[in-house]
Amino acid sequence: MSAIFKLTYGLFVLTARDGNKDNGCVVNTALQVTANPPQVSVCVNKANYTHDMIMKSGEFNVSILSQEAPFSVFQRFGMQCGRDVDKFDGFDEMERSANGLYYLTRSANAMLSIKVNKTVDVGTHTMFIGEVADEKELSDVPSVSYQYYFDHIKPKPETKKKGFVCKICGYVYEGDELPPDFICPICKHGVEAFEPIK
Amino acid sequence: MSAIFKLTYGLFVLTARDGNKDNGCVVNTALQVTANPPQVSVCVNKANYTHDMIMKSGEFNVSILSQEAPFSVFQRFGMQCGRDVDKFDGFDEMERSANGLYYLTRSANAMLSIKVNKTVDVGTHTMFIGEVADEKELSDVPSVSYQYYFDHIKPKPETKKKGFVCKICGYVYEGDELPPDFICPICKHGVEAFEPIK
Repeated sequence: MSAIFKLTYGLFVLTARDGNKDNGCVVNTALQVTANPPQVSVCVNKANYTHDMIMKSGEFNVSILSQEAPFSVFQRFGMQCGRDVDKFDGFDEMERSANGLYYLTRSANAMLSIKVNKTVDVGTHTMFIGEVADEKELSDVPSVSYQYYFDHIKPKPETKKKGFVCKICGYVYEGDELPPDFICPICKHGVEAFEPIK
Repeated sequence: MSAIFKLTYGLFVLTARDGNKDNGCVVNTALQVTANPPQVSVCVNKANYTHDMIMKSGEFNVSILSQEAPFSVFQRFGMQCGRDVDKFDGFDEMERSANGLYYLTRSANAMLSIKVNKTVDVGTHTMFIGEVADEKELSDVPSVSYQYYFDHIKPKPETKKKGFVCKICGYVYEGDELPPDFICPICKHGVEAFEPIK
């Protein structure tokens, strides 16, 4: 199943809030579904803490990452779990939009505030669809694509180890065989996302 | 509403079939929604003939366009209506996949056959979600992004005319004022997609 990897994506930090707790995660699945009214959809893994916050609050922000987003932003928001850590701890490159949610200022070229009007259960993920309630342009730096991230931002995986590397987030599973039901503890992708370290 | 234009997209020819009639259209909204099982979603304007075919048959192919796709392919599949013309007339760069539908061979780097399991009404568009029933890699040429299409494939709009140009497909409306409810006859976008010719 490699044809499916040829689909083109951007990369986004999705932020949400539950009470006083803020969280965010990295997703590649944000798109405009209609122009009149402007509606956006995102697809979020049910295992993500941000997923549960959006489900509860019906609101989220999309920070559209630019080519200037450093790897540390992908690590901070994409490679740890908001249930265990406060992802905004020690981070100051964000502001709150009118809905009270954070968005990223320096790593994003634009942000969209979305009010959810439809949730679609698609199995491991939920698709959230909603209207654009607020939007702001932040810079003229081009948006980062998945391909650009792989080519220019993500460090090459360490090749000394023996095992399997997750092509999505770079997590390394050490061992001779990858269990068939293995799920990446970082980005929640299954064995189809792993390749042997050469 | 310009922040929303910073979202990153690929470009795809969506093909479907009704009886003996084949059709296809250009969309920018194909993405993988889950990995287990592999599912893909696309968002299609209800005004498109391909939309009605998919609604009826529950099947479509996604030809993932590569950077080698010529402008003529975007004209053929994106800038005329399949109700008026046979878009495959005089075209021979396609084959049929196991489901009997066409996919593009020379302009695509991969194709996916999708069996619809869910339709979501999002207003002007329908989102079709389904499992990948078949897939094929066709070339190593990189996928075309919306941005690449604008920068390298789409001819610059003719600037002699006075009026408004559709930023999506290049259609030119001649006149001093664009009616507020104007819909692009080619790509079905509204006035928000138009800008004055400078």
